[in-house]
Amino acid sequence: MGLDQVRIVLVEPAGPMNVGSVARVMKNFGLNHLVLVNPQCDLLSIEAKHMAVHAQDVLESAVKVATLPEALQGCTRAIATTARVRDWKMPLEHPRLGLPWLLEEPTEPAALIFGREDRGLSNEELNYAQRFVRIPTSPSYTSLNLATAVAICCYELAQSVPLHSTDEEHRDYVPMSEFKPAPLDLVEAYYQQLESLLLQIGYLYPHTAASRMEKFRQIYNRVQLQDREVAMLRGVLRQVEWALGNDKDVTEGSGNSHT
Amino acid sequence: MGLDQVRIVLVEPAGPMNVGSVARVMKNFGLNHLVLVNPQCDLLSIEAKHMAVHAQDVLESAVKVATLPEALQGCTRAIATTARVRDWKMPLEHPRLGLPWLLEEPTEPAALIFGREDRGLSNEELNYAQRFVRIPTSPSYTSLNLATAVAICCYELAQSVPLHSTDEEHRDYVPMSEFKPAPLDLVEAYYQQLESLLLQIGYLYPHTAASRMEKFRQIYNRVQLQDREVAMLRGVLRQVEWALGNDKDVTEGSGNSHT
Repeated sequence: MGLDQVRIVLVEPAGPMNVGSVARVMKNFGLNHLVLVNPQCDLLSIEAKHMAVHAQDVLESAVKVATLPEALQGCTRAIATTARVRDWKMPLEHPRLGLPWLLEEPTEPAALIFGREDRGLSNEELNYAQRFVRIPTSPSYTSLNLATAVAICCYELAQSVPLHSTDEEHRDYVPMSEFKPAPLDLVEAYYQQLESLLLQIGYLYPHTAASRMEKFRQIYNRVQLQDREVAMLRGVLRQVEWALGNDKDVTEGSGNSHT
Repeated sequence: MGLDQVRIVLVEPAGPMNVGSVARVMKNFGLNHLVLVNPQCDLLSIEAKHMAVHAQDVLESAVKVATLPEALQGCTRAIATTARVRDWKMPLEHPRLGLPWLLEEPTEPAALIFGREDRGLSNEELNYAQRFVRIPTSPSYTSLNLATAVAICCYELAQSVPLHSTDEEHRDYVPMSEFKPAPLDLVEAYYQQLESLLLQIGYLYPHTAASRMEKFRQIYNRVQLQDREVAMLRGVLRQVEWALGNDKDVTEGSGNSHT
């Protein structure tokens, strides 16, 4: 089931825009089951729908219940979120470390519980959960917007699921580590072509060319050029050669070293 | 400088609520410098202030500029965020992997650039950045709310800074890994007290007590009781003993093994 097994439970949310934003971000990260405990606002209001944008389906299929135990029915695992550090003595985990636990039993529904905008969850409500997560914040402003807290938790949950298992689109995702620079011989051919041209136009002199070329090499090596970028740079050189009238070299058969 | 060296740059934001939400979440995660490139809304409107809540200072100190190069003035590092995967051929990094690079040169201002709500950044704008980050999303709904995207990036940036360096409050943060269960001898004393009581009340029989007690041990060992919880459980047993009239054992001096 993966992410789809996790229901997002909002206890007495009061802001329809928050509920709409929550629906949107849930869908953004592959979650679909929204449960509202005694909501203090209309979850199908214009404001909620406006913020949900293309997640109307999540909003419309949201379940309203009267109490937190009803919201947790059928769940074997529940995590509550809290900003408390003073009067709550249970372990508080970082979302990155705590949330993946919800997905460990892949056939069982699990719940992630968020409290009211103004005062979170009561101690009694916290006690329905087995684990507790706190999003670390700056001491200068610790109170997160409800939809922001849900967003960060949904994001973290989604990151704990292997990308390729659910997301076709991630095939286009090119992390820096997998980014392939052009083969060195292709880059070397560019350096040769550049040096040759710079010698031709008198920018380089034969006895200092090597040391000056080192500086060009340093620049382009740092860039880690791609194939198409090398091709582009070489295209520029060819164009300069053409403009200089050197392109006749090619027709004369002596320009092979430049291509 | 740490997080404070990173400016959040919004290119032509159109929604005042988004700008206000961005200010709030910046302050939540320890960022203070907001720069707006040609904003399409009033950043000190009622809606913006309403969403910023206690981050009015971030909103009021925000800088408005006409062009993206102006917003990047003085920065040596800039990362642009994009949702594009089809027509953008530069490496796209995961926020967790890409963003810490902004903090690698601790004395230099750095920029994190976000595009318009509806169409992000143009290719020309992307080219002002040296690196590119994409927040992975579900293929069923890839478009993130602007403030949500900023929130996730600010959260990720903040997580890459060692907690103890800036955040006094994090001393109260108790991750599961540092959560100290009660010393085993204290828990053992509880088991002894429990067994003794269960024998007294005839729940256990001497010849099967050990195997039955194993099941109790399995339960409480799994819970990893804390000191105060062990004290509480023992308090319950003492109360039962008192109710049974066994508390006279204590006054008679034979109840020491129960304490």
